[in-house]
Amino acid sequence: MSDQAFVTLATNDSYAKGAMVLGQSLRKHNTTKKLVALIGPHVAEPCRDALGSIFDEVCVVDVVDSGDVAHLALMKRPDLGVTFTKLHCWTLTHYSKCVFMDADTLVLSNIDELFEREELSAAPDPGWPDCFNSGVFVFRPSNETHEKLLAFCGEKGSFDGGDQGVLNSFFNTWATADISKHLPFIYNLSSVSIYSYLPAFKEYGRNAKVVHFLGKVKPWNYSYDAQKGEVRGHALTPDQGQLHPDYLLLWWQLYSKSVMPVLQQAYGETPFNSG
Amino acid sequence: MSDQAFVTLATNDSYAKGAMVLGQSLRKHNTTKKLVALIGPHVAEPCRDALGSIFDEVCVVDVVDSGDVAHLALMKRPDLGVTFTKLHCWTLTHYSKCVFMDADTLVLSNIDELFEREELSAAPDPGWPDCFNSGVFVFRPSNETHEKLLAFCGEKGSFDGGDQGVLNSFFNTWATADISKHLPFIYNLSSVSIYSYLPAFKEYGRNAKVVHFLGKVKPWNYSYDAQKGEVRGHALTPDQGQLHPDYLLLWWQLYSKSVMPVLQQAYGETPFNSG
Ligand SMILES: O=c1ccn([C@@H]2O[C@H](COP(=O)(O)OP(=O)(O)O)[C@@H](O)[C@H]2O)c(=O)[nH]1
Ligand SMILES: O=c1ccn([C@@H]2O[C@H](COP(=O)(O)OP(=O)(O)O)[C@@H](O)[C@H]2O)c(=O)[nH]1
Ligand SMILES: [Mn+2]
Ligand SMILES: [Mn+2]
Repeated sequence: MSDQAFVTLATNDSYAKGAMVLGQSLRKHNTTKKLVALIGPHVAEPCRDALGSIFDEVCVVDVVDSGDVAHLALMKRPDLGVTFTKLHCWTLTHYSKCVFMDADTLVLSNIDELFEREELSAAPDPGWPDCFNSGVFVFRPSNETHEKLLAFCGEKGSFDGGDQGVLNSFFNTWATADISKHLPFIYNLSSVSIYSYLPAFKEYGRNAKVVHFLGKVKPWNYSYDAQKGEVRGHALTPDQGQLHPDYLLLWWQLYSKSVMPVLQQAYGETPFNSG
Repeated sequence: MSDQAFVTLATNDSYAKGAMVLGQSLRKHNTTKKLVALIGPHVAEPCRDALGSIFDEVCVVDVVDSGDVAHLALMKRPDLGVTFTKLHCWTLTHYSKCVFMDADTLVLSNIDELFEREELSAAPDPGWPDCFNSGVFVFRPSNETHEKLLAFCGEKGSFDGGDQGVLNSFFNTWATADISKHLPFIYNLSSVSIYSYLPAFKEYGRNAKVVHFLGKVKPWNYSYDAQKGEVRGHALTPDQGQLHPDYLLLWWQLYSKSVMPVLQQAYGETPFNSG
């Protein structure tokens, strides 16, 4: 349906790479929905071009330009920069329903069925499971909701300093009101959970639909030996074992096969760092 | 109500100490429900006496004696010893409804409202939040359910080798069917979650009603300086920081004030290790 879209966000070139892999993973699994990338003003021109050839729509979001309410709220809470940018997804009112996905997520199968859910549907956060994780959520664009969110955010702030805190305080009946708004955890499988309860991952993990590389270390912080088909150096980082090697490899295979060529075309003769 | 009970389990003297603290924490917060301790045949006589003066009922559970179905299932799955013992709680059919609580839980306020919930109600497990944690759950005693559980257990085993795996496979619609069966996380706050998402603990933790000292290190693995009112040695263990110092202290204060005297009386002149 053309009035439904997957939406992601990248405020810099690193997260933009994540967004490209996410976009290609959605395409690979034949989504029938539109793909939208929100980007910050600092994303480089060739990156924007590459995003443009994967996504249906690339919107530059500059929160300081985004109207009085946002501006006022932002003045009060300069710490919540990226959070404000993420909330901007509610202004995509030319869509009737959207699914937001963090740029550090990777789709493993078609997930268009998520559009059957209502706002605000999300999967539990493994850290505090009465909170939802804001890396994947179903929402209904609305300028009214957007303004309420910004006002809320400006007044109350965020208990965790990010969008997840704000969204959980705003949609504060998620844990108790409606089970259909609980997305199964396999739609937002954090790589950290794999190791915290390995038997459950072995029992249920094979059905995973979305992997979320939550935490400090992201797939693009590694590098890849395309010749050998191996991720380099993941035994060298301090957080070793945090990212599941199979999913990490999957991310890099998709990057190498479906994103690199697009980036190379976009950068043309300009040399660029393949990661 | 006299046909409703809190039920716990201890197969040895260490867990029995936990059960005593749990029992006293329920008494301290004026529960109107009965208290039942299931114990294994290896719990020492004075420990049984001490449990007997805190709990309304102390039942010795020897799974090998507990009928044909259990026996058969057990023959096939000798690894699931304690699990079988825990499932025995379903045979308490002189109660119409019960709340099972692990011996490593501690109650912080009156939680009798849990009896308004139906079988099987439980809080999410932070490791894999589409599973419930089996440290606190509401159930309805029934010999039929008990036999079904044992048969299931004997045939399918447990994906995690314990009762949590079996119970999640048996009550397999918990994640998707009925939000009222999702106990708020504050009824089973694992000490591990405190550190995995500290801002959420700071936001919601003050409402905690039950703390669960989940994991390898239990409160009774420490020792306590009653004179100074300090838990000893918790900076010396490998898992330091896993147990929240405030809750650990609370456990030991209750142990020292309300369990030690009971144990001293039970042991009489026999010297015993205060932990
Ligand atoms: O500098 C940043 C940080 C975050 N994000 C966006 O905000 C999301 C949430 O941040 P992140 O995934 O790093 O948080 P985590 O999931 O690890 O908690 C990212 O996936 C991006 O879409 C971004 O564009 N630039
Ligand atoms: O040797 C044992 C192990 C467990 N238990 C009982 O089974 C529960 C579950 O085990 P535990 O709490 O150690 O598991 P965790 O919550 O750490 O996963 C305990 O609280 C006790 O009630 C017991 O009586 N003896
Ligand atoms: Mn993320
Ligand atoms: Mn326990």
